[in-house]
Amino acid sequence: MAVYTEVSDDDLRTFMADYDLGEVVSFKGIAEGVENSNYLLQTDRSNFILTLYEKRVDPDDLPFFLGLMEHLAENGISCPTPIHGRDGSALRTLCGRPAVIVTYLQGLWPRRIWPDQCSALGEALASMHLAASSFRLTRANALSVGGWRPVFEKCAARAHEVRGGLSEDIEAELGALEAAWPEDLPTGVIHADLFPDNVFFMGDRLSGLIDFYFACNDFFAYDLAICLNAWCFEPDGAFNITKARKLLRSYQKVRPFSDAELAALPYLARGSALRFLLTRLHDWLHHPEGAMVKPKDPLEYDRKLRFHQGVSSPAAYGLD
Amino acid sequence: MAVYTEVSDDDLRTFMADYDLGEVVSFKGIAEGVENSNYLLQTDRSNFILTLYEKRVDPDDLPFFLGLMEHLAENGISCPTPIHGRDGSALRTLCGRPAVIVTYLQGLWPRRIWPDQCSALGEALASMHLAASSFRLTRANALSVGGWRPVFEKCAARAHEVRGGLSEDIEAELGALEAAWPEDLPTGVIHADLFPDNVFFMGDRLSGLIDFYFACNDFFAYDLAICLNAWCFEPDGAFNITKARKLLRSYQKVRPFSDAELAALPYLARGSALRFLLTRLHDWLHHPEGAMVKPKDPLEYDRKLRFHQGVSSPAAYGLD
Repeated sequence: MAVYTEVSDDDLRTFMADYDLGEVVSFKGIAEGVENSNYLLQTDRSNFILTLYEKRVDPDDLPFFLGLMEHLAENGISCPTPIHGRDGSALRTLCGRPAVIVTYLQGLWPRRIWPDQCSALGEALASMHLAASSFRLTRANALSVGGWRPVFEKCAARAHEVRGGLSEDIEAELGALEAAWPEDLPTGVIHADLFPDNVFFMGDRLSGLIDFYFACNDFFAYDLAICLNAWCFEPDGAFNITKARKLLRSYQKVRPFSDAELAALPYLARGSALRFLLTRLHDWLHHPEGAMVKPKDPLEYDRKLRFHQGVSSPAAYGLD
Repeated sequence: MAVYTEVSDDDLRTFMADYDLGEVVSFKGIAEGVENSNYLLQTDRSNFILTLYEKRVDPDDLPFFLGLMEHLAENGISCPTPIHGRDGSALRTLCGRPAVIVTYLQGLWPRRIWPDQCSALGEALASMHLAASSFRLTRANALSVGGWRPVFEKCAARAHEVRGGLSEDIEAELGALEAAWPEDLPTGVIHADLFPDNVFFMGDRLSGLIDFYFACNDFFAYDLAICLNAWCFEPDGAFNITKARKLLRSYQKVRPFSDAELAALPYLARGSALRFLLTRLHDWLHHPEGAMVKPKDPLEYDRKLRFHQGVSSPAAYGLD
């Protein structure tokens, strides 16, 4: 295992001189996260995370991501907060890459989900949506309905290697969603990647949200649909309606959703399943030799997609 | 990036109940180390490292490794110390693997070596050799001269893929070393893998040694030879005689070496270079598809080997 970018002690020393964070006592690469190089940075005062942004993050997006984290933290959301250097700037350069130090969040991400954690998740997601509503920057969702076909076109010819008929099935679903994708649901900043490894807990208490590097402006309910897929299926593929009910009900207590949002949920869940099916399929088929990340199984999201295709009303998600 | 074994929060909770270490507040996979799964484990009392031993470690060797760390720590060497569970046992089971919690060592491993760090290294290495002399367990060095030919045989047919003529060169060197390998040098427990990423520093001060999973009984001077190779060559391949002199002189102040050890040093350095050339060559040629570790360049040690082949006296290492 390794991080993508090795930071020498000299480079680190020079970099840290631009901060007022104390003396470095430990610096370890973290074996989590796929896109960037992350280090746990301990000083004699506190713990921090140092992130170097690798090539899959567009540097032009960084002011949005860092500004959002700072805005959320100022508005009561527990999440990593960028630390400013002595000159006031949080976004800096290290080893030729954009780099930032953020505060360290205690907690563990759940490898196995308990239903009550879905309640905590719903509340935190809705609170994040509300807290972000006063954030002034915007970022389009490159992986919403308009972004799926270009990804599909890079995979269509080889999708049958993963499952016979997969290409035809995706083509049909893509057409259906492009034709019927909702247009006027409540919109704001969404996390867009709130998988369990981005949510920390201390016991049953949710202690914070991390990894805002897919955050963008889109339907709030699409974020819920992503969480339905990421949190409410069991390892054997079964949908857990109890978890879904807890997720949606606790969300609703903080930000009540409209009938239109509720009605759109099966479509949004199909769209979210297709989005992760497509990007996983792409990474599966175009997995570079010697990459340090194991590609994730696209068919997990193929199965989730088929579950939602069979849903005729939001009652399937546990709401009456 | 990922660790080899994902530990669920439930499994961790059950495991931690057998210790008296406080409440877990953070648990992160570390992107360092090649053989095992390592987690940084933070409780409300202190930091620890949790290691799960993967298949390349023989469980029968673990009492030696853990006993050695404990023995060294008791004898003044700064190194990770195994923590005992409530029942007195340090070696336990987690996720079906042997697992141990050790104390956490502050410091950073040097990505770029300063000459004074070689002085600190020599002193620490000699101190470790002396401290280990009262350790009662022994472990043969499976990767000493007798262990090289079996590794070579798995690579010989394909070594030319890495460099034309490599196979013939290794065959000749192997024959030379097998014929002339020393037999009666001072022997004891050696670290056998003391690369820079296994030595922590706080500034110029050496703060500790880690990763004793190649430790074994062999010539003390062979450990020095391994360090000569791992610490005293520059990234461009040049041998840095200043670093070698500092390493050997500071070692000698703590454990003076005999004339026989000194005279054997060029041979031991060739042997050490061949040992890492062979294991790297093996991993390069037999690199499994989808492995999470990038194989290291075998030719780095081919070049080091050729340097030592040209050495006619220990004066080349900076000693008069």
